[in-house]
Amino acid sequence: MSANPWDCIIIGAGAAGLSAARQLSRNGKRVLVLEARDRVGGRTYTQTAQCGMPVDVGGQWLGPGQNRALALAAELELSLWPQPQHGRNLLRLRGKLSSFSGNVPALSLFSLLDLQINIWRLEAMARRILAEAPHNSAQAADWDRITFAQWMHRHVRSRRTRAMFHAATHAVLATEPEEISMLQFLFYLRSAGGLIPLISAEGGAQEQRIRGGAQQLSEGLASMARSRGAQIRLATPVRQIDQDEDGVNVITDSGTERAQRVVIAMAPSQAANLEFAPGLPTQRRQLMQRMPMGSVIKVILIYDKPFWREAGLSGEMVCDEAPLRMTFDSTPPDSEQGALVGFILGAEAARWSEQPKAIRRGEICRQLTGYFGKAAGHPIEYIEKDWCDDPFAQGCYVGLMAPGVMSRLGHVIREPVGRIHWAGTETATEWNGYIEGAIQSGERVAREVMQVL
Amino acid sequence: MSANPWDCIIIGAGAAGLSAARQLSRNGKRVLVLEARDRVGGRTYTQTAQCGMPVDVGGQWLGPGQNRALALAAELELSLWPQPQHGRNLLRLRGKLSSFSGNVPALSLFSLLDLQINIWRLEAMARRILAEAPHNSAQAADWDRITFAQWMHRHVRSRRTRAMFHAATHAVLATEPEEISMLQFLFYLRSAGGLIPLISAEGGAQEQRIRGGAQQLSEGLASMARSRGAQIRLATPVRQIDQDEDGVNVITDSGTERAQRVVIAMAPSQAANLEFAPGLPTQRRQLMQRMPMGSVIKVILIYDKPFWREAGLSGEMVCDEAPLRMTFDSTPPDSEQGALVGFILGAEAARWSEQPKAIRRGEICRQLTGYFGKAAGHPIEYIEKDWCDDPFAQGCYVGLMAPGVMSRLGHVIREPVGRIHWAGTETATEWNGYIEGAIQSGERVAREVMQVL
Repeated sequence: MSANPWDCIIIGAGAAGLSAARQLSRNGKRVLVLEARDRVGGRTYTQTAQCGMPVDVGGQWLGPGQNRALALAAELELSLWPQPQHGRNLLRLRGKLSSFSGNVPALSLFSLLDLQINIWRLEAMARRILAEAPHNSAQAADWDRITFAQWMHRHVRSRRTRAMFHAATHAVLATEPEEISMLQFLFYLRSAGGLIPLISAEGGAQEQRIRGGAQQLSEGLASMARSRGAQIRLATPVRQIDQDEDGVNVITDSGTERAQRVVIAMAPSQAANLEFAPGLPTQRRQLMQRMPMGSVIKVILIYDKPFWREAGLSGEMVCDEAPLRMTFDSTPPDSEQGALVGFILGAEAARWSEQPKAIRRGEICRQLTGYFGKAAGHPIEYIEKDWCDDPFAQGCYVGLMAPGVMSRLGHVIREPVGRIHWAGTETATEWNGYIEGAIQSGERVAREVMQVL
Repeated sequence: MSANPWDCIIIGAGAAGLSAARQLSRNGKRVLVLEARDRVGGRTYTQTAQCGMPVDVGGQWLGPGQNRALALAAELELSLWPQPQHGRNLLRLRGKLSSFSGNVPALSLFSLLDLQINIWRLEAMARRILAEAPHNSAQAADWDRITFAQWMHRHVRSRRTRAMFHAATHAVLATEPEEISMLQFLFYLRSAGGLIPLISAEGGAQEQRIRGGAQQLSEGLASMARSRGAQIRLATPVRQIDQDEDGVNVITDSGTERAQRVVIAMAPSQAANLEFAPGLPTQRRQLMQRMPMGSVIKVILIYDKPFWREAGLSGEMVCDEAPLRMTFDSTPPDSEQGALVGFILGAEAARWSEQPKAIRRGEICRQLTGYFGKAAGHPIEYIEKDWCDDPFAQGCYVGLMAPGVMSRLGHVIREPVGRIHWAGTETATEWNGYIEGAIQSGERVAREVMQVL
C-alpha cells in the first residue's frame, strides 16, 4: 500500500498519543510513538513515596461523565477509590477561617445567593457554547472581548463570592482570572458539562482516584498498543517534521523516521518548538504562539497518620493565601499514613517556582499549621512537582487563551496541515484539559487518520 | 583576565545586537555576534527592486526624538529624505471614501471632537506610565485588566472615531485592539512620547526615510564593530546556552563557543525557542511564552510614475477594508518611478498570509484601483514581505502582551539571568518597538555587561 516504513508516527506518549496509538495499531496500522520524556504519561505522573505510597504528582482524579477514562480504567482492571469526603472543610478568605460540612461553603446568606446566582448565570452561558466550534457560538465575539475577571467584576457583588470564583479559576484552570478569555472559560465549562461538575468531588471531576496512580492509564494504553505491534520510543525528542508529496520525515537527534501521516499529541505551546518544512500556516503558528500554559506546583505531604480526621476535618481546604491555595485528603484507603495533596496555582506558582524547595516546604508547613494545627507542620515526607519548570510541559494543566485568541484562531485547533494531524487534551470537545479529553482527542485523531490511510 | 575565548557572545545581529557589539568592541572587549539569518538587520531589511529602487520591506522611517538612530545615520553619512506629504490624503471608513489635506481627517465635527478628546485622554494616561517600570505605574493593575478595545468601547462615542483608533492600533502595533493590554498600549505611547508622535509623519515617527534603506544602519554598526575586532557570523542559528561557574557555552549546529557573558538580542518569543541549562527562571520563561508577535505583511508597488500626485493625492490612505489598511507614498526623490508602500495588518495579515502571492497581489491592485483610480491596478513591480511567516521573526513589529502579562511579569524583561543579558527593542524604555528602541537596548546592555566584565 505504501512504501513508507510507518503508517503513522505519533509524537507524544501521553494519554492522547497512546490512545491514538492503541486505536491505530488495533486497526492493523504500523505505528511508531516518539516521546521526549523517559516515561509515558505526559501530564500524568505517578511516583512512589519512600513509605511505599504511590503519589500522583500530575493528573489524579476521574469523575462521572468521563466515560472513556472510566472504561479504560475498568478494562485495565484498575480499582477506583472514592475521594475522602468525611468531616468539615476549611475555608479561609480575606483573613477569616471558617469550616463547613457538605457542599455549601461557609459564606453569608448574601454571598451564598450571589454565588448561586452567578453559577447559574455561568452555566446558562456555557450551555450556549458550541462545544465543537466555540468560536462560532452566537456570542463568541462578545465573550472573547473580556477576561473572566472582568465578567466577575461586572456581575459578582460580594467580595467573598468573588474570592470563591477566583479560587475556582485557580483550581480548574491554574491561571489568574485576569489572564483568561471569558470565551475559553465558558468553553471549558461547556466541555465538562458545567462549573459544578468541574469543582465538585462527589458527582464531579474529583470523585474518584485510581489505586496505584493515574499514570497506569497511559501505561495500560502503551501495553495494548505494543501488543498490536506499535513501537514506543522514549527519550527521543523530535526536532523537525518535513512533509513531501509521498510522506513525512520526522527528525530526531538519533535519526529520521518516515511515515504516511504524523499525529502531534503535544500541548500547542510545546509543538511550537518543533521546526516544520514547509512551514505551518500562519494562523496555526499564531495559535501555538498564543496558548501559554497555566502555572501549578503540586505538593504531597505524607504524615504518620491522617491526623486531621481526629479533629473532624476532611483535609479539604480552600484559601486566598500563599503558597497553597487548596488541599485535599489524598490518603489511600489501605494506608496507615495520611496524605494531603496541595496546589500552588497561577501567579503564585510562577513566583514560588523560583524559590528553593526548602523554602517552599517551610512556608507550606507554616501555612498548614495555621489551618490544621501543629501536626501539619511535621510531615514525614514532602514530595512536589513543579510543572512550571518541567522542560517538556513548561506549565500545566493546559494551554490558555487571552482575549481575542479563540474567536480569531480557534477554528484551526484540529485542522490537519497536509499529513500532520493534531491531538492532545487542548483539542478535545469533551472534558477539555482532562485525561478524558486527552483520550477523546486520541480516539478522534485515530479515526481522522484511518480515513486517509 | 579570563580564560574564555570571548568576553561576550551576542545572539542576534539586528540593530540591538550590533549596537551592543559596537559599544563592547569599542571598549576593547572580544565580541562574537551569532546571527541565524544570512544577513544583518533583523526586522530591517532593504531589497533592491528590478528597476534599481532600494525598498525597505521592514522598518523604514525615523523621526524627531529618535536621537540615537538619527545620530547613527549622521555618523554613517546617510542622507535622510522627508516622507512625501503634499496632496490630499484618502480616508475610507465604513464604506465612505473622503479626502482631506493636512493632519485633520475628514470626519464630522462630532467625530473630530471625540477623536481629539480621546487622544488627550490617552496621552494624559500615558504620561502617568513609568517608562522604566510600567508594571509599577500607579494604575498598572487597572490598566492591565482591560484591552485597548475595551477602553475604546467605554470612552469613544463615535463609530468613525473608533475606526480611526482601530486603524491607529493596526498602524502602530500590527495587532487588533481586542488582543492588546491597555497597559502595554499606554506604555508604548509613553515610550514614544505620546500617540501623535507615533502616528504622524511630519514631526513624528514617519517623518524621514533613509536614502538607500534602513538596513544600512545595521550594516554600518556591523562595519564599526568589525573594525574594532568583533566577529560576526551569519547563518549560524544558536540552539542552546549552558551556563557554568566560569562562563557560558553557546551551542550552534557548527560548534560551541564560550564566553564570559551572553547577550540575547532577539524578540522574546524567538528566544523562547532556545534551550537553556540550567533552565531559565519560571517568570522569565512565562514572559517569553506570553509575548506573541504582531502580524504584518508589507507591500511595495512600483509604478512607472507617481501617478497619484497628478490627481492631487499624497498617496497616503487609511481604510477599514482589506487587504491593505494603509498606504504611503514611498517614492525616492531621485526616482522617475513612483512607489506606494502598503500594510496588511493584524488579523487580516494572518489570514492573507495563507493565500498565494498572486491572489494577494490581485486583491491589492483591485482595492487600490477603487481608491486611486485605474493606474493603481498596473504596477510595474510588486514586492512583498510577509513577516508572519518569516522563520526568524514569526511576526512583526513587536512582542505583544495580553491583559495580565505586563503587570505580573513585566519586571523580568531586562533582568539578567546569571551570565545572560537581554536586549532587543522589546526591552527599550524609549521608542519601544522601533529601531531607536533597539539601539537604546543595545547601548544599555553593553553598559550592563561592561560593569561585570
